[in-house]
Amino acid sequence: MRLITYGNENATKKYTPRRAMMYVPGNDWKKINKISSMGADSFILDCEDGVALNRKDEARSNIQKIFQEKMFSVLKSELSVRINSIESGLCKKDLETILKGPIFPSTLHLPKMETKVQLDWLAQELESLLGKNHNIKLIVFVESARALLDMKELIQHCFTLMDQGAPFNLEAAVFGSDDFCADIGATRTPEAKELIYSRQHFVTCAKAYRLQAIDLVYINFKDMDGLLRQSVEGAQMGFTGKQVIHPSQIEIVQQAFSPSKEKIQWARELVQSFDQHQQSGKGAFTFHGNMIDMPLLLQARNILKMADRLDQN
Amino acid sequence: MRLITYGNENATKKYTPRRAMMYVPGNDWKKINKISSMGADSFILDCEDGVALNRKDEARSNIQKIFQEKMFSVLKSELSVRINSIESGLCKKDLETILKGPIFPSTLHLPKMETKVQLDWLAQELESLLGKNHNIKLIVFVESARALLDMKELIQHCFTLMDQGAPFNLEAAVFGSDDFCADIGATRTPEAKELIYSRQHFVTCAKAYRLQAIDLVYINFKDMDGLLRQSVEGAQMGFTGKQVIHPSQIEIVQQAFSPSKEKIQWARELVQSFDQHQQSGKGAFTFHGNMIDMPLLLQARNILKMADRLDQN
Amino acid sequence: MRLITYGNENATKKYTPRRAMMYVPGNDWKKINKISSMGADSFILDCEDGVALNRKDEARSNIQKIFQEKMFSVLKSELSVRINSIESGLCKKDLETILKGPIFPSTLHLPKMETKVQLDWLAQELESLLGKNHNIKLIVFVESARALLDMKELIQHCFTLMDQGAPFNLEAAVFGSDDFCADIGATRTPEAKELIYSRQHFVTCAKAYRLQAIDLVYINFKDMDGLLRQSVEGAQMGFTGKQVIHPSQIEIVQQAFSPSKEKIQWARELVQSFDQHQQSGKGAFTFHGNMIDMPLLLQARNILKMADRLDQN
Repeated sequence: MRLITYGNENATKKYTPRRAMMYVPGNDWKKINKISSMGADSFILDCEDGVALNRKDEARSNIQKIFQEKMFSVLKSELSVRINSIESGLCKKDLETILKGPIFPSTLHLPKMETKVQLDWLAQELESLLGKNHNIKLIVFVESARALLDMKELIQHCFTLMDQGAPFNLEAAVFGSDDFCADIGATRTPEAKELIYSRQHFVTCAKAYRLQAIDLVYINFKDMDGLLRQSVEGAQMGFTGKQVIHPSQIEIVQQAFSPSKEKIQWARELVQSFDQHQQSGKGAFTFHGNMIDMPLLLQARNILKMADRLDQN
Repeated sequence: MRLITYGNENATKKYTPRRAMMYVPGNDWKKINKISSMGADSFILDCEDGVALNRKDEARSNIQKIFQEKMFSVLKSELSVRINSIESGLCKKDLETILKGPIFPSTLHLPKMETKVQLDWLAQELESLLGKNHNIKLIVFVESARALLDMKELIQHCFTLMDQGAPFNLEAAVFGSDDFCADIGATRTPEAKELIYSRQHFVTCAKAYRLQAIDLVYINFKDMDGLLRQSVEGAQMGFTGKQVIHPSQIEIVQQAFSPSKEKIQWARELVQSFDQHQQSGKGAFTFHGNMIDMPLLLQARNILKMADRLDQN
Repeated sequence: MRLITYGNENATKKYTPRRAMMYVPGNDWKKINKISSMGADSFILDCEDGVALNRKDEARSNIQKIFQEKMFSVLKSELSVRINSIESGLCKKDLETILKGPIFPSTLHLPKMETKVQLDWLAQELESLLGKNHNIKLIVFVESARALLDMKELIQHCFTLMDQGAPFNLEAAVFGSDDFCADIGATRTPEAKELIYSRQHFVTCAKAYRLQAIDLVYINFKDMDGLLRQSVEGAQMGFTGKQVIHPSQIEIVQQAFSPSKEKIQWARELVQSFDQHQQSGKGAFTFHGNMIDMPLLLQARNILKMADRLDQN
């Protein structure tokens, strides 16, 4: 049996589906109030690109209030926060406001990850604000040529910090295609041929560490055929979800990133077979005559968790 | 003259064409007995994925017997063995059975190469079984996100071990696309757009070390047009061969990966010109006014060796 | 404000457009005499592949003479020199002849960059010929599997040498696709699908270090539609220019790599806004509500410099 464990992947930890991820500016109550009526898997209250510089304070205190007052306590979707990039100099204040507690978001999005030093800083900042016992979920953004080239080393460094007790748990990586294109001087086209290398290198790095991989935004939100085509393509490449910028994109994206009935059936049988094998306790684990490794078992479990989650909605 | 030598490439060593590589389960006599009537360049007696867990012992002893009894001694094709992955825990017994001699295969296929530690283990195991004087041909499989990302370092480590006397000679790398797709959660499509990055990164790593690069399996073995299209595409990308899963695929694949008459003519003239230059012994070597480097000369020789080999059949 | 500086990028240094780069053999006066009548952004007097081995001396002394006699002193285009690769053994004599001064080219092209040791050698050679005070512009070629895999480290090493006082300034990287294809055994096709990975990895490495990225040659110089298609595609991928092999290719290529009116307008407003902000001297710099980082400002300035340069012609 092949048993590879990179980082602290844990077959029993809760799986959070993030097929459709939607950003909502933290200072825009009109949009915030619509969250309850939309069905994205994950909403991100934004302090970063969606918020003008002179509205940052407002966004921070809104977000803090939203969590303290449990405004979305019955929401089935994940509700998280995107802080400003560490190099912006705005991030420290974001963290201090949003995490002053006692209630705070379970997931943070870190845009524009670039260097190990940034990650060290984040680990220290979170430890001083939360203490070592917390374990906030972390989602990192790759948005530049440099970050893409260094992606393996940067993710590896996150896991090294986690092994050393950093109070976060890296769960996903997001491909920030617009900033990436600006950074390399590329022009977005509908077919996105200019992004084949970057998207596929991104997926390979994310999956090597068993992270969720979130694909680029489809900018033309009136073109549903194009959105469907790009969503299906992303799922075929190995992405697990996609950023959306308009409510009308949510359903198409979620459909494209949902496991098929056949895949759910395969996963159910594999997990049942593994559980029986665990009880009998002998030798390597095989399924339909093939040996099954831990990553594949984890993948099967994630499919079932996502299927369960979809049933609940 | 540009003279780059990575690893121990040797312009005079024998070239083994591996345009079409076919796996035959080591426990399936019906298929084994057909080997003589098929014309693949390379047959691999399989202990790994093609053999169920409770048939491993049978496969091992069959394979050992096949070599001891010289059952395929007149076969023009290469006959080699795929052992189980090192992390499976089954590999040691494979090696002990198959290499107990006095006659054993000249080529081993190592699936699911993942770490340097695995390669260290293999080098030690082979040395303890064969001694330092043997030099078994080694073919490694890249089948996961991690292995693809680390491919350059892993191949480099093979050459480091070879420099230190490890009793193998790395000749080729195989892209294990099905396990790779499962590993990153990708879905195979007929056009294989989802694999452009992985196939081309794979070829680049293999060729940087002057290894043969073996392309993915074309799964739908009834679709000959699709097989031809993908084979030609693979050859254009720089692959030197392709895995086949059905006898009907062999001829199409071999055609696609054979050098053209023009290329053979070019290679013949280049090698002749080099030999003349060696005798006259002056200055840098040029051909049609261009300087020729060692890798290109090696490539020309390999084309001629493959052409010679094809003439013999 | 995000402020990333890789290497010694300098927002105020002069920008040299290199949309169309054309090689002219240093021993071919017929072609050299046509330079004045052609409008490529950059002409390269070639000592390397365009010159047969027994004509190298002639090319060197021609080139030296061209600069000493200021033969092209009124030329608006850049006039530079491609030396032979370091591993050819011919490079030292190239440098000694061409740089013996007092007037010499402002830009050198280094083909077949492969190793850090080569770059160390070049830095020392230039220092001994020019002294530390000179700062010749350097353009490097990536032309092999190995160089592509090591591209990030090799460029990083250039910047390390520059930080240590090496008398060159790395400005651009050129993708030498023909040698690259020969090196990996690939076959060029009109659509160039076989080069998607290599071109896009190349662009990402170049842009991570804010270098100009020069795309492959379009070989069939009679196919203007194909040239236009590939030029536009290259610009979309992030390339800033393209090698040309025939005068008829120049205009199409320059059109494809020129900034659009919209982009020039955007750049002009951004730079104006930044200059005003510098005078008022407060806080982070925003434009249309978004924070602007240094690379983006540099990109805007380069667009304006290119636009100015185009106006002059």
